[in-house]
Amino acid sequence: MRLYIAPRAPNPRRVQMFIAEKGITGIPEVAVDLNAQEHRSEAFRARSPLAKVPALELPDGRVLTETRAICTWIEGRWPEPDLMGRTGEERAFIEMADRRIEWYFMLPMAQCIRHTHPGLAPLEQPQFPDFGASQRDKALDTARWLDAELQRQPWVAGERFSIADITAFCTVEFARLARFKPADEGLGALQAWRDRVAERASARV
Amino acid sequence: MRLYIAPRAPNPRRVQMFIAEKGITGIPEVAVDLNAQEHRSEAFRARSPLAKVPALELPDGRVLTETRAICTWIEGRWPEPDLMGRTGEERAFIEMADRRIEWYFMLPMAQCIRHTHPGLAPLEQPQFPDFGASQRDKALDTARWLDAELQRQPWVAGERFSIADITAFCTVEFARLARFKPADEGLGALQAWRDRVAERASARV
Repeated sequence: MRLYIAPRAPNPRRVQMFIAEKGITGIPEVAVDLNAQEHRSEAFRARSPLAKVPALELPDGRVLTETRAICTWIEGRWPEPDLMGRTGEERAFIEMADRRIEWYFMLPMAQCIRHTHPGLAPLEQPQFPDFGASQRDKALDTARWLDAELQRQPWVAGERFSIADITAFCTVEFARLARFKPADEGLGALQAWRDRVAERASARV
Repeated sequence: MRLYIAPRAPNPRRVQMFIAEKGITGIPEVAVDLNAQEHRSEAFRARSPLAKVPALELPDGRVLTETRAICTWIEGRWPEPDLMGRTGEERAFIEMADRRIEWYFMLPMAQCIRHTHPGLAPLEQPQFPDFGASQRDKALDTARWLDAELQRQPWVAGERFSIADITAFCTVEFARLARFKPADEGLGALQAWRDRVAERASARV
């Protein structure tokens, strides 16, 4: 088994945190250099045809891509502690929370960064800076909604830590590249939650 | 139980097809008028705080949003025929296929349409037509990859019909608004697969 990652990219970090929360050790990591376009090389595409990281090479040689699908596979093999829900009902509500973060917070924040940050130009061509800037506002709308959620409940999906917290944490940390810090936007509950997650051992991956 | 939908929008249609494939009947549908901004009304936001359709009001009054999370809940309650995989491993590979379609085919195609189609201006503000046009090429890249997949395997996730076929079919149908037709792009396997799915009873929802 082997996990292909890219240092500083938020999606590989989600899988790395997920693995750390499970207490799994011993999966070798292989760094892929995105700025050198290594993910688009023929060798890497033989494993990940759409040139995406993270990618998990399974013991039987098959390669699984897509952050959340990799986590589903890991959860099936190492069910404890459960991070995605045990019953169909629990899984559905955690998936809802995770997707709200992915689609309305992580995606617009990533689009803002990819279309406005000079350092991301090798990855996003063509860049549309005006579009990117407009997406920061959409991400902020979701951050405000998330702050209100975290005023009433301790974790993103409700009463317990889940994959949705990992997705949100990796988004907030990546969002520093767009000069986003919850406290600066008056989002005290989001900042307090972020600081609580940052103390977990898994946040140090 | 009650399903909030929006006629002609691809995401509610995914849930409607999923329900039809299961043979479930009797869930009342409530149409939400997106052009009249009904999804942003206070009444609808009380159910779906991020103003998204589809939304499924559960028997206990809670409301579940996010297409795939709604499908996860339905699959838990009506497991047959299974469309998302039975084991953790099967679920992971089907989720991978579904997400590849969602993120690299449906998303860029929807962004193309939302940023370039005058009829979508009420839903996407501000529109960035150049950005939108650039996303059509990204969607086409994925369509070409999908065509190659469908030359080797009958269904999007492999040997059997799954939620990934529903996501891909609803994308191809919606993509007509961007004047996309697989046959016109020389994507014969994708066109043949589309025509096969169109014959299923669930495609008539």
